[in-house]
Parts: sequence; C-alpha cells; structure tokens
Amino acid sequence: MAAERTILKTQVGIVGGGPAGLMLSHLLSKAGVENIVIEKRDHETIRNTHRAGILEAGSVRMLTETGINGRVLTEGHRHDGIDLRFNGVSHRIDFPSLVGESVWLYPQNEVFVDLAAARERDGGDVRYSVSDTEVLDQTTATPKIRFTDANGERFEIHTEILVGADGSQGICKWSIPGEERTDNFIEYPFAWFGILTEAPPSAPELIYANSEHGFALISQRNEHVQRMYFQCDPDEDASAWTEEQIWDELQKRVDGPDGFQLKRGPIFEQMVLKFRSYVCEPLRYGNMYLVGDAGHTVPPTGAKGLNLAFNDVRVLFAAIEKFYAEQDSSLLDSYSDDALERIWKAQNFSYWMTSMLHTRKDATPFEIKRALGELNTVVNSEHGKAYLAEGYTGWPTK
Amino acid sequence: MAAERTILKTQVGIVGGGPAGLMLSHLLSKAGVENIVIEKRDHETIRNTHRAGILEAGSVRMLTETGINGRVLTEGHRHDGIDLRFNGVSHRIDFPSLVGESVWLYPQNEVFVDLAAARERDGGDVRYSVSDTEVLDQTTATPKIRFTDANGERFEIHTEILVGADGSQGICKWSIPGEERTDNFIEYPFAWFGILTEAPPSAPELIYANSEHGFALISQRNEHVQRMYFQCDPDEDASAWTEEQIWDELQKRVDGPDGFQLKRGPIFEQMVLKFRSYVCEPLRYGNMYLVGDAGHTVPPTGAKGLNLAFNDVRVLFAAIEKFYAEQDSSLLDSYSDDALERIWKAQNFSYWMTSMLHTRKDATPFEIKRALGELNTVVNSEHGKAYLAEGYTGWPTK
Repeated sequence: MAAERTILKTQVGIVGGGPAGLMLSHLLSKAGVENIVIEKRDHETIRNTHRAGILEAGSVRMLTETGINGRVLTEGHRHDGIDLRFNGVSHRIDFPSLVGESVWLYPQNEVFVDLAAARERDGGDVRYSVSDTEVLDQTTATPKIRFTDANGERFEIHTEILVGADGSQGICKWSIPGEERTDNFIEYPFAWFGILTEAPPSAPELIYANSEHGFALISQRNEHVQRMYFQCDPDEDASAWTEEQIWDELQKRVDGPDGFQLKRGPIFEQMVLKFRSYVCEPLRYGNMYLVGDAGHTVPPTGAKGLNLAFNDVRVLFAAIEKFYAEQDSSLLDSYSDDALERIWKAQNFSYWMTSMLHTRKDATPFEIKRALGELNTVVNSEHGKAYLAEGYTGWPTK
Repeated sequence: MAAERTILKTQVGIVGGGPAGLMLSHLLSKAGVENIVIEKRDHETIRNTHRAGILEAGSVRMLTETGINGRVLTEGHRHDGIDLRFNGVSHRIDFPSLVGESVWLYPQNEVFVDLAAARERDGGDVRYSVSDTEVLDQTTATPKIRFTDANGERFEIHTEILVGADGSQGICKWSIPGEERTDNFIEYPFAWFGILTEAPPSAPELIYANSEHGFALISQRNEHVQRMYFQCDPDEDASAWTEEQIWDELQKRVDGPDGFQLKRGPIFEQMVLKFRSYVCEPLRYGNMYLVGDAGHTVPPTGAKGLNLAFNDVRVLFAAIEKFYAEQDSSLLDSYSDDALERIWKAQNFSYWMTSMLHTRKDATPFEIKRALGELNTVVNSEHGKAYLAEGYTGWPTK
C-alpha cells in the first residue's frame, strides 16, 4: 500500500552508492546541495568487489583536492608508464616524459572505502542494502525514487534532480523508454580470464602483451597480491583450469628472448570476464541524468571505466551547482553532449587498445600483421607513444 | 623455337618500367651496376595513366637529390597540410608545425615522365612495349627473363638479380610457387567513385571528409583540372551517373555550417576504383626480389602507394650496391624483412585512415560514433595530429 511509504524530500536523489554516486554526493554536499544516495548492495559487498585499479591523474586529483583524503597517494602506487610487449619484446611508454602525467594503481574498492568514509565523516545521507528500487516521474518537476530500506521500511524520495549511478545492470537506464534512447554497443568475440594470485609482482608496471597465443595483461594489486588476465573464449569455463595450466598459458603469452618469467603463486580467484562496449544516448531523460557505468561501459583494456565515471560526475556536478547557484539550467541541458564527448574518445581508446592487442580467433594473417605493424608504428614514434600516453593518462579536461 | 632467342646478359634485370623500376634502374646505373628494364606498356600509355599524386618529402628527395631533375619542385605543389572534415567542420592538420615536413602534389605520371627522360638522357636500357614476358630460374644463380620486343624479336636476359617491379597485375609475384609465399589481404566493402573535372581547385589542399553519406576526398591535380572521389559500392556503375548527380553527391558529403561549396566544372573522366590491401611475404624468391605494387598494394586513402614503392627501391638499391661493391649479400638477405617493416606500417596507416573516414553500409551506430570519437580525439590533440602527420608525410627512414 503506497500510503505506508515515508516521503523524503531532497534536491538530488542518487541511485547507486558506488564511487560515482558517492563522489557526486560528496561534491554536492560540499556545495550545499541536499542529496540522498541509495544503494542496493551492503557496504561490505562493495568494499570487497575487486575492480580495475588504474586512476588517471585527474581522478586522483578529484580524490585528493576535494577533501576526500590522500590515501591514494600514500597507499596507491604511481605508475609512470606501461610496457607494450609484442613479438616477445617489451617497449616502455614513459608517461611523464611524453605527456607530463602519470597514473595511479589503486584498487577501485579502496576508492569506495575512501568515499564511503568521507561521506560518513561529513554526515552524508547514504542508505545501503535497499531493495525494490523504482524510479518514476522522471519527466516531471518531481522525479521520485521508491525503495525499501534494510529494515523493511518503505520510502519515496521526492527529488528535483534524479541521478542514475547504478552501474551497468542498474534500473535507471532501463527506465528510459526505448524510443527515447539509442543503445550503441558492440560485443567482442573474446573475454578475459582473470586471476588473483598470492605472489610478488612480476613487473613494476602493467604489461600489455600481444602474442601469437592472444592477449595477456600482467597487472599488480599490491606487494603480495597480483592480478593477471589472458584473452579467452567468452564461454570458457574458468573452473576447468588447473593453476598450472593457467600459469603456463600466461607465461606462453609473455615469453620472449629476454627470458621474462612470471612469478608464480597460489591462485585464489579465477573468473571469466565478459566485456562489451556500450553507450546510452542521450544520458538524460527529463530530469534524470545517468553517470558512469549506468550510462556506458568500456572493455577494461584502457582502464577507463572509473575514470570516465568520475568525468561524468565532474561535468554533472558543475551543471547542478550552476543550476542551484544561478537558476541556470544551460549546463544541465548540455550535460549529455558534454559528457559524451569524452565518453566517445574513451570508447575509441578502449576499442583501439583492445583491437591492437587482442587476436580474434578468425583473424586473417593480414589482420594479425597489421596490428603488429600498428604496434611497431606506435612504439617507434614519439608522436605515437605520446598519443597513446595521452589517452591512457587521460585527455586534458576543458 | 628457343634457339631463335637473342641472349642478353646483365647484372640486374628489372621487369616493369613504372616509377619503381625506372628509379631502381637509375640508381643502379649511377652506381655502375648494369641493368635492363623491360615494360609491356608503351611509353605513351604510362605517361597518360593517371594515378595518385602525393609524394612524401623522402620521395621528393629521391627525385631531386639523385640527379633525376627538379621539376617536382617547380611544377608540383607543396602541401603543408590536409583537412579532416567531419560533422561538417574542417580541422587542419598542419604538417610543418607538427613534424617539420611537407608533401608534394605531383601526379604519378609526371614522376614517370621525369624518370623516363632521365633514363633516356643517361643511356639507360629500357625497352617498352614488350610482350610474352616470362621469368624463370629464379632460384638459380642465373634468373632469366624472356620477352618479345616491340619489333617481334625474342630475347632472353640472363641476370644475376631479377627484380619484379611489374605492378599489382604483374607476373613476377605469381611466378613464386604458392607454398613459398603468403598472400596477406583484405577486401573492403566499398570502392571509390573517382572523377577528373575541368574546374578550378575547390580548396588549396586535400580535404578528407567523413560524412553521414560516406567518405569523400576533394583533391587537386593542377590549376585547371581537379580530382575528386566519393565512397561507393564496389559494383557501382560509373557510367550510370549524370554529372549533376555526381556533383550533388560530392557536395552532400562536404556540406557544413561554413557553407563550403565545391567549384563545379565539366567532368571528363568518371570511374569506379576498387581497392584492397595486399602484402606478399616474403618479397623474395631465390634471386628474385619484388618492389612496389608487385609485392603489395594499399588503398589510396593514405596516398602511400608510390611512396612505399620508392622505399622498397631505396632498401633494395642499398642491398644490391653492397652486394656488388663488397660481395656482401647480407642486405639482400634481409631485404624482405627490412622493406616489410615500413610496408606494414603503411598498411596499417592506410587501413586506419580508411576505417576512420569511411562508413560501412552495415555499420552500427556504435561504429559510426566510435570513428567520430577517434577523429575528435585526433584533431583535438597535438599528439594525435602529429601521429597522423608523421604517417602521412612519411616516417623517418633508418
């Protein structure tokens, strides 16, 4: 019975308490804009959801310069480059000398921990473990969010601006009628077999390897735990592989005349990560705005997911701030176009990195050698390396 | 009857008297290496075969600095950039400020005219209008070329080194047994509708246009004649189009808020240009070496065809020179690998320019917007523009 719902009123209602939702909430609160965040998962689950961990310099600055905390700088690791490895030879892309920037290795769940702690410290209204979430009246002046909280109590939030930050599986995007949105997407004919292993780092920075056996990514998490991936079939059964088979497969893809050897250790997580590229257009429906994975997803190759979400937040925050400070909705009106500009750049960057480094099963010799020709062009050109480095560390913001 | 053949002996026998064959012959003669060139077409036909006309700075230097003549500098036009046009807006890529190089607009048949004149001036042995050409004994110390000359006289050239410079339809490549070569290729699902028109230039430099109607290239030939192309179906019937339809189609693809208008004139040639990417590997079979289109073809988008042929010639000439000067065949042995390095870079460059600028008929919204995202990334980044400019003007030679 609807009558039993407790009505809450706020200026901005945010569906989704991942990094994007919490960052927006943090910025809005600092600017004096009332907001409530609801999140279906519990705090512990998000805290333990391991996701990619490369932050662009601009994302790091959003954490350190807006008063979250500086933990990324002390507990994260600055990476000044990546290795592109092909034909068994590594080629370093040195970010600072090419574009004057670096990236930080800092797991996404640590970003969540920092943001959640800051929101709690500052008295933010964040409600975890909600269920039965619905969004309605998006095209009216009072968009609403209905949900049941962790205690079973039912609520209805009356908002002025509704933000969908509820991830790729969220409800907000799908609440937009099909005729009001374009779903742009491509599927890739491969997936990533990912592992977490208890071992020392095999390399100080990420290695992106193109090999005749397919792609591999040698990544790190911290001194004791490493994350690695190799390209596999989308329908690969992760549980069917023994640890030895996994290590042999990874090693095969980084073998080379330099004798590079992975440092092996017990594998405590192994899973298949399917990925696709997706963009919802526009990122607005009435007074509802989509940010981050709720509006678009990229393959993990370019490490753009969280960074792109933070960029959406940056753009939307400026728009909301202007709206409340000056009663000027011009930036809200252009939010979708403004955010999409960087999103399509990042989509292209992720697609480019993916195509250049992976090998399709049905790839012809021409396609394989063309990709090697491309890698060879990039690593032998200061301009090519700088073009890649600029995309990887993040294009300047306007 | 074989007995009737006149035997000729030379060090290097060159099949094909287009720009690649003549340039190699010129360089060899200068270095004191005997050579004979045979060519099935007559001088007039080649002179009037209109082909792409963008020369990299390195190709220009091969013409001006090896004693051909300097006509390219006086009659060609230096182009300091190109326009990338998309969403109706032009973005200039300024070559000198980005990479310190330029390109020259100078039709390929003029290059032939210069080379043929220089060969004649220097007493080179070039035989046009030959027929019944065969190559044999490539894997022996004496590869042979048989042909019938313009007067019906039959010859057999005994060579030490045989060079296939006989273009994409030539016989040399096909004389390599199938099991000894890899044919790397891709077909493109579109072609170019090309015209020659008697009109003043519509723009001072080339315009590469990506539009919702497909690709167009606004190019020049000289003050009075212009060359333009638009993407079409491979099975398009060129003769079915009226001049007005052609102009309307071209104009549609460059329309934009700046009101850019093509300068129309009578169209005196209209044809459909099919294209594909192809690389033969290796570029050697015994003592036969392939150069230029005889070994590889690129789509015209990157204007790499002749430039790549000249690079092959540069690499092969150095190898032959070393062989005769020092009895050292090491560069001959590495010719194929050495030439292929740049060939695969150019294949990738041409493929990249083609994919970014053309629209496949079955392209999804994602693919179309991704390409626009790529163009947007490139033109808004000094690094992106320099990466493209470096490829267009030609990577440094080793």
